[in-house]
Parts: sequence; C-alpha cells; structure tokens
Amino acid sequence: MSRIDGRTPEQLRPVTIERGWSKHAEGSVLVSFGDTKVLCTASFTEGVPRWRKGSGEGWVTGEYSMLPRATNTRGDRESVRGKIGGRTHEISRLIGRSLRAVIDYKALGENTVVLDCDVLQADGGTRTAAITGAYVALADAVTWAQGKKIVKAGRKPLVGTVAAVSVGIVDGTPLLDLRYEEDVRADTDMNVVCTGDGRFVEIQGTAEAEPFDRKELNTLLDLATAGCADLATIQRAALEGTLGA
Amino acid sequence: MSRIDGRTPEQLRPVTIERGWSKHAEGSVLVSFGDTKVLCTASFTEGVPRWRKGSGEGWVTGEYSMLPRATNTRGDRESVRGKIGGRTHEISRLIGRSLRAVIDYKALGENTVVLDCDVLQADGGTRTAAITGAYVALADAVTWAQGKKIVKAGRKPLVGTVAAVSVGIVDGTPLLDLRYEEDVRADTDMNVVCTGDGRFVEIQGTAEAEPFDRKELNTLLDLATAGCADLATIQRAALEGTLGA
Amino acid sequence: MSRIDGRTPEQLRPVTIERGWSKHAEGSVLVSFGDTKVLCTASFTEGVPRWRKGSGEGWVTGEYSMLPRATNTRGDRESVRGKIGGRTHEISRLIGRSLRAVIDYKALGENTVVLDCDVLQADGGTRTAAITGAYVALADAVTWAQGKKIVKAGRKPLVGTVAAVSVGIVDGTPLLDLRYEEDVRADTDMNVVCTGDGRFVEIQGTAEAEPFDRKELNTLLDLATAGCADLATIQRAALEGTLGA
Amino acid sequence: MSRIDGRTPEQLRPVTIERGWSKHAEGSVLVSFGDTKVLCTASFTEGVPRWRKGSGEGWVTGEYSMLPRATNTRGDRESVRGKIGGRTHEISRLIGRSLRAVIDYKALGENTVVLDCDVLQADGGTRTAAITGAYVALADAVTWAQGKKIVKAGRKPLVGTVAAVSVGIVDGTPLLDLRYEEDVRADTDMNVVCTGDGRFVEIQGTAEAEPFDRKELNTLLDLATAGCADLATIQRAALEGTLGA
Amino acid sequence: MSRIDGRTPEQLRPVTIERGWSKHAEGSVLVSFGDTKVLCTASFTEGVPRWRKGSGEGWVTGEYSMLPRATNTRGDRESVRGKIGGRTHEISRLIGRSLRAVIDYKALGENTVVLDCDVLQADGGTRTAAITGAYVALADAVTWAQGKKIVKAGRKPLVGTVAAVSVGIVDGTPLLDLRYEEDVRADTDMNVVCTGDGRFVEIQGTAEAEPFDRKELNTLLDLATAGCADLATIQRAALEGTLGA
Amino acid sequence: MSRIDGRTPEQLRPVTIERGWSKHAEGSVLVSFGDTKVLCTASFTEGVPRWRKGSGEGWVTGEYSMLPRATNTRGDRESVRGKIGGRTHEISRLIGRSLRAVIDYKALGENTVVLDCDVLQADGGTRTAAITGAYVALADAVTWAQGKKIVKAGRKPLVGTVAAVSVGIVDGTPLLDLRYEEDVRADTDMNVVCTGDGRFVEIQGTAEAEPFDRKELNTLLDLATAGCADLATIQRAALEGTLGA
Repeated sequence: MSRIDGRTPEQLRPVTIERGWSKHAEGSVLVSFGDTKVLCTASFTEGVPRWRKGSGEGWVTGEYSMLPRATNTRGDRESVRGKIGGRTHEISRLIGRSLRAVIDYKALGENTVVLDCDVLQADGGTRTAAITGAYVALADAVTWAQGKKIVKAGRKPLVGTVAAVSVGIVDGTPLLDLRYEEDVRADTDMNVVCTGDGRFVEIQGTAEAEPFDRKELNTLLDLATAGCADLATIQRAALEGTLGA
Repeated sequence: MSRIDGRTPEQLRPVTIERGWSKHAEGSVLVSFGDTKVLCTASFTEGVPRWRKGSGEGWVTGEYSMLPRATNTRGDRESVRGKIGGRTHEISRLIGRSLRAVIDYKALGENTVVLDCDVLQADGGTRTAAITGAYVALADAVTWAQGKKIVKAGRKPLVGTVAAVSVGIVDGTPLLDLRYEEDVRADTDMNVVCTGDGRFVEIQGTAEAEPFDRKELNTLLDLATAGCADLATIQRAALEGTLGA
Repeated sequence: MSRIDGRTPEQLRPVTIERGWSKHAEGSVLVSFGDTKVLCTASFTEGVPRWRKGSGEGWVTGEYSMLPRATNTRGDRESVRGKIGGRTHEISRLIGRSLRAVIDYKALGENTVVLDCDVLQADGGTRTAAITGAYVALADAVTWAQGKKIVKAGRKPLVGTVAAVSVGIVDGTPLLDLRYEEDVRADTDMNVVCTGDGRFVEIQGTAEAEPFDRKELNTLLDLATAGCADLATIQRAALEGTLGA
Repeated sequence: MSRIDGRTPEQLRPVTIERGWSKHAEGSVLVSFGDTKVLCTASFTEGVPRWRKGSGEGWVTGEYSMLPRATNTRGDRESVRGKIGGRTHEISRLIGRSLRAVIDYKALGENTVVLDCDVLQADGGTRTAAITGAYVALADAVTWAQGKKIVKAGRKPLVGTVAAVSVGIVDGTPLLDLRYEEDVRADTDMNVVCTGDGRFVEIQGTAEAEPFDRKELNTLLDLATAGCADLATIQRAALEGTLGA
Repeated sequence: MSRIDGRTPEQLRPVTIERGWSKHAEGSVLVSFGDTKVLCTASFTEGVPRWRKGSGEGWVTGEYSMLPRATNTRGDRESVRGKIGGRTHEISRLIGRSLRAVIDYKALGENTVVLDCDVLQADGGTRTAAITGAYVALADAVTWAQGKKIVKAGRKPLVGTVAAVSVGIVDGTPLLDLRYEEDVRADTDMNVVCTGDGRFVEIQGTAEAEPFDRKELNTLLDLATAGCADLATIQRAALEGTLGA
Repeated sequence: MSRIDGRTPEQLRPVTIERGWSKHAEGSVLVSFGDTKVLCTASFTEGVPRWRKGSGEGWVTGEYSMLPRATNTRGDRESVRGKIGGRTHEISRLIGRSLRAVIDYKALGENTVVLDCDVLQADGGTRTAAITGAYVALADAVTWAQGKKIVKAGRKPLVGTVAAVSVGIVDGTPLLDLRYEEDVRADTDMNVVCTGDGRFVEIQGTAEAEPFDRKELNTLLDLATAGCADLATIQRAALEGTLGA
C-alpha cells in the first residue's frame, strides 16, 4: 500500500521544531508534524498550587486547545459554549502526565510550569505533536529558570526526554504517524508516549472498528518505539541548534 | 508479596452481578468488584441523535459519575460545581467506546442505548467494574427490545461480549484488579478492555512513577487477558442465571 | 376507594431502613418507601463554612439528587446540563432545614455534617424518604463523632428526631404516602416534616388543581401526623437494631 | 408587644398597587407592602412551550429576581455569578404555581403569560408582595388580550383571584405581614397563598428555630386568611380604579 | 424634519432625576430620559478588590442590566441563560470607566463604590441615562461617606462631573438624544460622555449603515457637547434640590 | 520625544500580512504589527443564522481570542473559566461591525463568513491588527466563493476596504500605533476604523486618565486617518501579491 503522501508505513512526516517562537514565554516552540502545527508555550512561574504548598516540590501541567478553524470545518469555541469538551480534557491531562514523567519535582523546587499546546492547524496527530513540542518548550523553560537561579544550581529538574507518536492499522497495514485521512480510516488507533531511552510513559490503544489481537499490538508497539526514537533525535538536534538560544 | 486482602497477584476480587436492580430501566445491574459497587442502567430509546438520523444505524453511549461520598473523602458534586471534570469525561467516553465495540449498529436499527454507570462505593477499578456491568445491562436492554419487536426479528445487535480489568505494578509485582490502596502505590497502572474471544478493545497504560519497558508491559497484558476471560465467564453465568429474569 | 397496591388510605408503604450501607461515610442508610429507594450518606467533617468560623457552632446541610434513570424516563444529568434545576434546589434546601431543626449547634461544635440523598429509584415521596433516611444517617454520624471524641463528652447534638411523609387528596380521598401514580392524580399535595414528639418542622401544601379549604387541610394534617409517628417508630427500631453496627 | 412600626399583630403594612407602570408590558404593576417594592410585569405572548403545543391550553409562569441593592447589603448579581440560587428558583416556582391556580388553561387558549417580579426594594415579604401584585398584572394582561380578541370572546381565563401574605411567631406572638427585622427574629415563618374565596393555594410553613404545634399553626392560618382577604379587597379596588393613576 | 415627539434636532427629551429612591443604598437615583427609566444605586463599601489592597487608593465600578420586560418584547434573563451578553458587558465597562474619570482614587481612600444601573423601561439611550444618573448617585454616596468620616475630612474624591448623551444621523439629519425608533433608523450612532467642563471622557461612534466623514463627525460632536452641558445643568439642579436629602 | 523603538510619532510599526497561512480556511492571514501577531481566518459557509433565513442576505461575524501566553503573564483560558470576559466580547463585536461595514449583504447572498482572530503574541494594538488582517482574509474568502460560484457571477459582496489603527496621547505627545508599553502610559487611547476612502466606520476614544478636549481629538483623528491610509496601501499590496494565491 502506498500512503497518500508517498511515505513508507514506518516513516514519520517531516517534523520541524522552531524554538523561541514567542517573545513572552519562558519556552516556546512551533512544532509541525507535516501539516499539523502546534504552538507550545511553557510558562514558568514561582509557586505551586495550594495543595502542594510547603512540599518543596514543583508541578507541571498541560492545557490543550484547538483554534476554531484549525480543522477543515470550523468548530465552536469552547469558551463560547462555556464548557470544555471531553476530548480536550482528555488530551490536556495526557500532556500533563507525559511531561511530568520526566520531571524531578524536588529538583524543580516549588515552581510550576504550564504547557499550553494550541493547535493552529490540524492534520492528525495533534496530541503527539503537542507532547513532542512541549518537551522542547519545557527544556527551554527549565534552562531559563536555571539561568535566573530560580532553580537552584546543580539541580536537574529534567530527568529524561519524552516524545509521542501515533500508530494505527489502516486497511490491514500498520502505519506510523497517521494523517487525518488515515486516522479516520484506521481500525485501530494508538498513541504512544516514550522516553528517550525507549521505555513507555503512556500507551493508549483503541479499536475503532475491529478489536485487535496481541500480534497486531506488538507490531504497532514496534513501529511506535522506532518512531519515538526518531523524534528524540530530532528534539536533541533542535535543542543543540542556535534557534532561540 | 501478600496482598492486603490475601489475594494472589493474579486473582480477581469477588465479583457479583445483580441483574434487574431497577424497575424502570430496560437493563440494570448492580456490579461489585470487592467493595467497588457500580449501578449500571441501560436506557433503550427509539430514535438516534440528529447527526445519525436517516442512517438506519443505532448509537450507544455512556455516562459515568460518582456519588459524592462514594469515596473516603466527600467530593463536590459536579452538578453543583456546574462543570464535569476531566476524569469523568474521560471515563464516560471510555465506557461508550468499549460498549460500541460489540454493537452492530445496523442490527440495532435507529435506536439509542445510554449506559449510566453511577459509582455508589469506590475502592479502585470503578471504570472496569462499570464496563463489565454495563455490558450485562446492555445485553438485557437488547433482549428487552427484541421482546418488544423494536429490534427486528433475527437481528443480533450484540456481536460479542466485553469486560474490563485493571492491572498494575506495585512494589515490583504485577497485580490484577487493584484496590484503591494498591492503585495509589502502583508505579504503572493499566486498564484493559477485552472482548470475550480475548482480543483488545482498549488498552490504557500509564507510568505513574517510573516508565515501563516492553517486558513489564507483556506481563501486565498476560494478567489482564486472563482476568478478562474470568470476567467473561462471570458475565455469562449472570446472564444465564434467573436473577431479575 | 382501593389503592393500586391495596393499601388503606392511612397506610404507609413498606418502609425499610438499611444502616451502614457505605463503608466510607460516617453514617449511611439505604431507605425505601415501597419502590422509592434513596441512599442517604452523612459526611462528618471538622470545621465549618467561613461565615460560621469562630462561632463555636456547627452546621448541617443537605444535597439531593436523582440518578438519571431513577425514573421511568431517563432525565439529563444536571452535571451535564451544567446547572441545577429548581426542584433539586428546593428539595436540597428542605432537607437541610429539616435536619437542622433537631440539631443543637453548640453541642455539635464547629463541625459540619453534609447529608447527601441520592435517589436510586423513584416512585413518589423521594423527598420524604430522603429526610426520614437522612435522620438515621445523621444519628449514626453523630454517634461516630462521639466515639471519636470529636463531639465532646456529654454533649448531645441531636435534640430530637425528624421524619417526613407526603399526603394528598386523590379523587376526593385523603391518602397517606403517595406513590407516583397517585401523586400525579392528586388535587392537593402536601409534604409534612414532623419531630418525634408530633410537632411540625415544615409544612408544604400545594393545590395542584383545586384550592383546598381548612377542613381538607385538617384531614391531611391528621393523616400526616399519624404517618410521621409511624415513621418515628421505624427509625427508632432501625437505630436499636443490629444492622450495620 | 408593640411592633417596630406601631402596627397591631394582625395588621398589614400600607399596601399600594400602581397599575400601568411600564408602557411596554401587557400588564404591569408596582406593588408595595410598606418598604418592600416589587415591579410585576405580565408579558402576554401567543403560543405555548413546545411540550404543550397542540393541547389547546395556555401556560402561565413566573420569574423572580432581586436587584443587587434591593437589600441592605449589596448582593452579587446572579447573571454575573452565572447561576441562579436556590432561593430564587424556589420563589419563581411558587409564583408560577400560585397564579396558575386561578387560570383556566382552556379559556386562555394556546397563549403564554410570563410574570416577571423584580424586587426593587426589599423589607420582608417580597414573595408575597410579588404574588399579590402579579395577580393584578395578570388580570390586566388578560383584559388586554380579550380586547385584542387574542382570547376568544366569552372566554374567562381568570377563574378567581389570588393573594399572599406572610405570618410568623415572633417572641411568642403571631404576627401578620412581617418586615425584615421581624422575619429574622421569627421562630416560625409561614407564607400563605389564598384565593379570594378564602381557600388555600399554597401553605409553606417552616420552623426556623423551635418546631410548632397544631395550635400555633391554626393561629397563624387564621391570621393569614384574614390578611389575604384584606389584600383581595385592595386588589379589587385597584382593578376598579382608573389605570395607572 | 419633525421628530416623532415634536422635539427639535438639538433638543433633549424631558429629563428627571429623582434622588433617594432606595432606602438601602448610600446613593440612589431614578433617572428618566423621556420613557427611558433607569434605577441607579451607588453602594459604598469599605475595602477594595484584592489587586488594589495596600495601594491607599479606591475603586469604582459599574454593572448594567435590563429587566426582561424593559423593552417591547420580553428578553430572556441573563441569570437564566447563565451568561452575560456582550452588550451588557460592554455597557457595564463603559459606565465604570466614565465614572472613574471624575474620581480621585487617593482621596477616595481604600473604599469601593459599585454603581448598579438597572433599566426599568427602555426607549433608547439607556446607557447615557445610566451614566448621567449614576453620577448623581455617586455624588450622594460620596457625601454619605464624608458624613460618616469614612472619607477623610478635607478629601474630595469627586474631581468633576460627568454626563452622557447619544447623537445620530437619521435620514441625513443629526439628532440629539435618540429615542428607540430613531436609533434603529440611524445611519450613524454615537455615544458621548463629557465632563462638566466640556471635555471628552469617552466617544463611541459607529457607522450602522454608511461610513461617516469628518464633517458629519464634527456636527455630531457639537450636538453632543451642547447636550451634555444641558445635562450637567440638570444634574447640578438635582444635587442642589431638597429631594431625598 | 523619541519612542522606545525609534519610530516617529506618526509612524506605523513594521506591518506584515502573510496570506494563505492555513490550509483549511477559505481565507487566512497572519498579520503582524511589530511584535503583535494575529492569526485571522475567514470561514465561509453556505446558509445564514435562523433569524436571517429567507432574507436573501448574508451575514458576517467576528470572534476574537488570545492564547493564554500571548502576553507577558499567562492568562487563564476563557474556556477553562467557563465564560468569556467583557474585553473579549467587546472586541469580537467590534470586529464583526467593522467588517460588516464593507459588505453588501444582498451580493453576498445567504452565506455566512466568520472571522476568527486569534492573538498569538500581543504587544498592543491587537484589535486593530485583527481588523486589518481580517479584511484581507475576508477578501480571500469572498474570492474563493466567487471562484466556487457560491457567490453569483457579477456580484460584488465587498463594497470597500477597511483597516484600523490605535492612537493615543503619551506624555502629551499624540502617537500612532501604540505598543503595549506606550498603551499603558497613554492618557487618552483611541481605536479608529476607517474605510479605504478615508471615512470612519468606528471611533472609540477613552480618556484613561485626563479627559481630552476637541483639539486633542482632532490631532488624534488626523494621525489615525493617515495611519489607516497607510494600512490600506499595505492591504492592497498584500492582495496584489502572489502569496497564497
């Protein structure tokens, strides 16, 4: 099977990570996975939510949103409807959990980082692009805080790297990094969040049509693990680059 | 390691499924996984949501909620706060997707089943108990509709069975069907939804503390698959029983 | 006139009070008035709302809700609609006022009891069953607090007992404890809350169709007073019983 | 006991009913019970809510609200808070029920009257003033509709008159028509809605402190019945007056 | 062109300012511009919002609302809809800004005045009547606070006077103080807020149909400036009067 | 006075208009006024809101929003707070009115264009950049609809061009196109929306500190008119360019 954009089944879309996109945020990244573009900002503030005060530990949280015309058909703004939909909630929570997996709360100290991931254009994989970009924004925000001595000298709040990718079975073929047109046709859809050393932070697999068996699962996990490793390389290159530094 | 309630690592808590619990609902089940008790009602109504009208196909959806004092500390009512939390949204959506996996929409016809899963008492595994119980309530509601000829003769809206169980790694030991005290101590927490023939409908694994590797994942999946098979047996027995019939 | 379930006009439905229904709450009761089933939990917490701090006095409040399929037709969840309906508000306030009538705030000390009354199945009289059950849950929570020495030795926060019943005029006949089918046909509908010594805490009478005169009112009050006395006996028996103890 | 404003226990405050207060509404009344001032407008519109369409019957409903500075201390606007409080809900529903008690839905035809009762200044008894004034606004709106032939010739949608008054026991003395200062000191507080022929539409009695017995209840009902009769006389005089004068 | 009520183009409607309308508020005014009637109350409270604490400076804010039947067709209550519309927000903010323009925050001290402007009857120009009336209510509240020594002796929180009027071009003719029927037919609609010495606090001009040029703008500003001067005279007379004093 | 970025008082910041920014929207523009960046998308859909059906006329509306970290300090999301703030409402309404000023509803036919203006980075003048960019997005969407024959041949829905700019008096000097640092220090702040032929669509001037007189107003209007003319030239150039075509 040839994919609509000519990729092989195990190939990522072109991925770009543009650091320093916003002049205000402590870390900010415009990440693109093909036509999916997400603006990720990391807002570093001193202090923690009330329930964590006095613990000596920090906190990291995420908020995901889509611009109304990020998609092919305009969606209503959640602010206008007055409530946040289930999908938005779910992805916001996933982003927060994923990034917290590589944070040493003690080393962060009583500081909070909020990762805002706003989808400017959507073409499948918005949550995985968001996590992948948010990691780089988080790294920049932590570096900023170290420079400002808000994080104490010698402390390393980041204990690893994290990236995410989608995989799915379309017409019987397991594919990496699905575009929207592939995603809607997928029988099984899985989002995998990995650390840079190849371990899992989160696995969310859903049988959209037909339930999947253990063999299919294994094939998807192989694809995803390799994809995340490629993303980790791209993240490393972006952080070594001169952009926004 | 011995578990707080004396179970072996691969053992379910006592599971009971009490059918016909409510006189009003077309299907209703009080399911318990140990001290976790969930009231699942299936409301069968003719007609479908607007976006599905004229398709000849039905729809199945879920709503999850917890009574304020289902837990050790009283929680605010979401109706009083005026909005539904992310966790509630996430689980409601999971219940809906899980049950839709065993539905033939065409055979259901333009009818809707809403599965309300209200947690009366919580002790870990509320979402997995909810899915397991909701399946039985759904089966009863479908039988009711067949009896009323609302579902046409010869049509089989249910194309399989579905059950769910949690697994996790606690102090290095993989455990099946976690109680609350085990759940909060788990490094990795996974909810697995399987069909009766052992395939996966949904896998949601989260590294709460330490990321997990492929080997740990495989151990957890083995445990969960076996647990779901046991639950399928219990579901079958309940549906063959005389309770509520 | 013979009633649909064979009762005499002045007869209560079978009433059961099952204590200790929930393992988490300080007091918990599953109360049934015939097919009406309400789960009442009493949550005892130290401290009072801000406006009462430093007064040395406690507070008691109630929250009423119905499961979506407690009734014959599924109702929307108030949490999903994002607002609480007028009827829910009204009954929650009634429950709070009724229970506060038998509380000595000074003896309770700066502690709060929240009475959650969740209707699991409705067949008329849900608010009166809720009040009657909530009293028993409250009594258990107070006993718990005395055992824990949170309420000081020798203090008696409960200064009486309280129970409630509905009465109405159906086809010209005054009836006690209306089922749903009777309630919708009633010309006059009244809910009466009495203390164990036969005095009134609350009287809410509404002419649903025809206004009622003083004579009809007196007949209804006679019926209700006798019904509340019967309920007080049942409450006393429940509290003396061994259930849940 | 002498009352703060020198009234006898069974005396109403000065009551004024100013018709035709608003040029837009089909019926509008500024009613005052002493310093309590309520603007009542009756909006008559053709058509009924969806659930009543095709029935040939009309509908009457009420909405109560208080201006933020109607009281001694400014209250938050419910529109700003984004939700309606329980007290507002309760009174709105009471107003609707009270006025519906004197409506012949068939004679009204498929038309709707909304009674808006906005408290401009509060000094106790706002709900009873609202009901008393709303009746006159409703009567004017019905007359308007008869004039416009929207209500068919010969039809009498109003089958009676309705008025309301508060009574309570303050320092052991039963009092009619309580001012705010009396209301907060009352042991028992009762709102009574009567038809012009002396029958009851609604009785809402609450023991604020001490439960009340049958004898006290009877005394209060005597007071209220007489008070409502006085109000009916005032209403009749207002309707015989020369509009707006 | 002759206007519907016989006024000349540069003539205000009859304006009345009735002080001391409410017994509770520190300042209260019923202002009418023809048939437009707005109840303006000024609530003076000690203390300021959190973000201003410790600054030694006060705060003034406004809230605008319309009774549902203030207009020809009944509108839904914003409290019932659960959210405030854009128009309400816009006018509330305008009222606050306009009144703050004549306040010396330091002289006011850490006190807050809330100006509630509730439209009882609308016939165009509700926001300009609200500002004009709110100024008088504010002046009375400041005088009250000076009398109570809450504002320190010798301090003058009010540094000027403020009034507002609408102007517009209807069928080519510039008109002052538009009634509703004129307003809906206006090509250009402008609200102008002036201080008593003829300077501008706020100019909001909108081309409803055809854009307007500099010459038309100048004509409208001339009209508005003269209208505001007339209103300032009326305000002065009201404050010198004996009404409500 | 020299400005922080070295501009003369009557000079715009560098303005860029990047067309075709989003692949989904019928028109999309990333507009920047210096560091202020706004993504404007025009969503063209057939059909109109219910109140306009059958009129043969179209509709144009706007929605403005800011990403949480568009500013120096992170703001709460309005979707999370559950309500839209007054400022957002006000600007959304201004955008809609401004663009409708250059639309011939008849020529547009029963079609709707929604202009979403999302501020990605804010440095003053976000509403004026939004209007200026939205015009270009609207022009592209209209061209798209003409190409698709959704707008009938020969019809010209756009009857002019529209642009907007802010002006203000800072330390006594009138300045064009204020940056954030200038805006917060301005005594008077004015937003002016002009058509390409130099007429006014909207003037909103506010005295932030000191009221302004007619002479200052005239100076500001001169500045704004010249600034809008420059913006019209830039818009024309962008639309003649090859970007996104």
